[in-house]
Amino acid sequence: MTTTENTTARQVTVLGLGDMGSAIARTFVDRGYRTTVWNRTASKTAPLAEAGAIAASTAAEAVAASPLVVVCLLDDTAVDEVLASVGSAVAGKVLVNVTSGSAGQARAHERWARERGAEYIDGKIMGDPPYVGTPNIMFPFSGSRGAFDAHEPTLRELGTIAYHGEDAGLAAVEFMAQVAVAYELLIGYLHVLRLVQAEGVDVVEFAERVAGSVAAFPPLLTSMAKAVQSGEYAPDLGPLNVQAALMNDMIDHRESLGVEAVRMREVKDLMDRRIADGHGGQGFSSLFELLAGPSRT
Amino acid sequence: MTTTENTTARQVTVLGLGDMGSAIARTFVDRGYRTTVWNRTASKTAPLAEAGAIAASTAAEAVAASPLVVVCLLDDTAVDEVLASVGSAVAGKVLVNVTSGSAGQARAHERWARERGAEYIDGKIMGDPPYVGTPNIMFPFSGSRGAFDAHEPTLRELGTIAYHGEDAGLAAVEFMAQVAVAYELLIGYLHVLRLVQAEGVDVVEFAERVAGSVAAFPPLLTSMAKAVQSGEYAPDLGPLNVQAALMNDMIDHRESLGVEAVRMREVKDLMDRRIADGHGGQGFSSLFELLAGPSRT
Ligand SMILES: NC(=O)c1ccc[n+]([C@@H]2O[C@H](COP(=O)([O-])OP(=O)(O)OC[C@H]3O[C@@H](n4cnc5c(N)ncnc54)[C@H](OP(=O)(O)O)[C@@H]3O)[C@@H](O)[C@H]2O)c1
Ligand SMILES: NC(=O)c1ccc[n+]([C@@H]2O[C@H](COP(=O)([O-])OP(=O)(O)OC[C@H]3O[C@@H](n4cnc5c(N)ncnc54)[C@H](OP(=O)(O)O)[C@@H]3O)[C@@H](O)[C@H]2O)c1
Repeated sequence: MTTTENTTARQVTVLGLGDMGSAIARTFVDRGYRTTVWNRTASKTAPLAEAGAIAASTAAEAVAASPLVVVCLLDDTAVDEVLASVGSAVAGKVLVNVTSGSAGQARAHERWARERGAEYIDGKIMGDPPYVGTPNIMFPFSGSRGAFDAHEPTLRELGTIAYHGEDAGLAAVEFMAQVAVAYELLIGYLHVLRLVQAEGVDVVEFAERVAGSVAAFPPLLTSMAKAVQSGEYAPDLGPLNVQAALMNDMIDHRESLGVEAVRMREVKDLMDRRIADGHGGQGFSSLFELLAGPSRT
Repeated sequence: MTTTENTTARQVTVLGLGDMGSAIARTFVDRGYRTTVWNRTASKTAPLAEAGAIAASTAAEAVAASPLVVVCLLDDTAVDEVLASVGSAVAGKVLVNVTSGSAGQARAHERWARERGAEYIDGKIMGDPPYVGTPNIMFPFSGSRGAFDAHEPTLRELGTIAYHGEDAGLAAVEFMAQVAVAYELLIGYLHVLRLVQAEGVDVVEFAERVAGSVAAFPPLLTSMAKAVQSGEYAPDLGPLNVQAALMNDMIDHRESLGVEAVRMREVKDLMDRRIADGHGGQGFSSLFELLAGPSRT
């Protein structure tokens, strides 16, 4: 740590030294920031203190030490507890909370901070701790634009960053939406691995073929979103009339092998309803029109 | 059509001239095969006859005309009806049925053909009619190895082909498994588009970011299959202990906006059970162990 570089712009506090908080604090230390750390279980500060960080004995003391405070705890309950213990020390600070949580929780923290004279930025983390400090981890941020602009160089130390808007909830929306797309694919994929395994197919060879197919999906995802936005549904993946003819076979096959078929039954039902409504010449993305959700504006 | 090239190896019959059957027949005509065609609604033979195909007036007559008979109809019911009308004309022929259908149906057709002195290859089509005759459409095949080897050059005219084994059902297994992975991703994705739209996020900009994330998935799909095969589950996507902390927020967020959460509730339930079983340090792929299906061998 080069002490002469420690302008206030290069002073940061990290609350929470789990796997992720430690990786974040370590990155700041390594880049020469004056880094103050705090963790509920104090012993976790030791490796960071050894690397050059300053260990604070309370969260309030840690917050008081720097203009920018990064909060990285297990979940929102932990954030509430720790922030409650900090009290008025947050006045004049910028809080950057990168703990996983909902849009509603982010908006509530933003109000809490504003009432105490602090600015709030919510952030989410898409990637694993070893990637912190590289471009291969993504941090969507949202909340105070002014605070984001002022601290962008510091936040950029952590990975690839993006600002999603003044509404503090937008980083959480992005995170939960992206994680959900991943989980939808991956849980469906695990069920399909059960199916191919039951048929005696080598799961790794199958995976390599699926990986080849999935590599072709990105342009389809974009064209489907354009169809949803315009309401003009080309026959992507073929017309529903043709696609629907397969669904009974697919469902029967899964059920005969004891593999669940909840999404495939849903897809069949949606296709049948679109066809009954006279849209059998449209494609898969037109199923969007039947999905529950707030009405389109 | 160069008549002098018409050895029996370059004679083929196509039964069914819908969008896909027409594209297949057209490809054979264009490559100089003596191509005999038949369709229930006879008028659909006209454009092909104009291009040089021979229109047969019954399916049996069409089958009699060539050593190799490609069947491309709407669904399995149509295949049963047409094959029943063909009767003994199939003796000595190779039937290649590329109609969508189940593994069980393929196996039944294989028995039917064998009983009548014909060889059977089942095929499935992964791609749209305009891509027939290009490498950008995939045809998994299974069934008689001898017949496949003998007719491989002809089948290769249609696109990228792969042979999956003597069990006639294996092409259907591959097809339904691959389509299911696509549908799992895409229906989940459409629900997520509802979510982001409800939050006022531009769906096309979101799609472009998701497309970037999905582009990184292929290696993960392969590593997850390796974990499933070995039963050794590294913390892919982070340890379940950390991932599970997000699930309540994600489910509440969706439900507060009227967006369905069936897969996310399933994922949460599976994560909670794995953690309760002492596997909270493992990753997402370990959820496979809890999925319904025939027991592992
Ligand atoms: N690890 C990943 O791969 C990953 C990836 C993306 C996002 N994230 C997110 O990053 C955040 C942190 O994850 P992590 O991997 O660092 O988790 P972790 O290793 O389990 O660490 C959890 C941290 O939260 C603290 N904590 C928990 N409850 C607390 C409470 N009531 N009061 C005060 N402190 C409390 C723990 O303190 P003690 O040491 O005292 O227990 C510890 O510092 C989570 O929101 C996670 O979803 C993690
Ligand atoms: N189109 C695609 O994008 C696509 C992609 C992959 C796979 N496939 C598969 O390819 C196969 C054919 O699809 P397609 O697009 O060509 O469908 P299509 O355009 O709807 O044509 C259906 C064909 O089946 C015939 N048919 C239906 N019922 C019949 C019956 N009972 N007896 C005799 N013939 C009957 C029709 O004859 P008529 O002309 O007399 O009605 C027509 O030739 C399907 O299994 C489909 O799943 C299609």
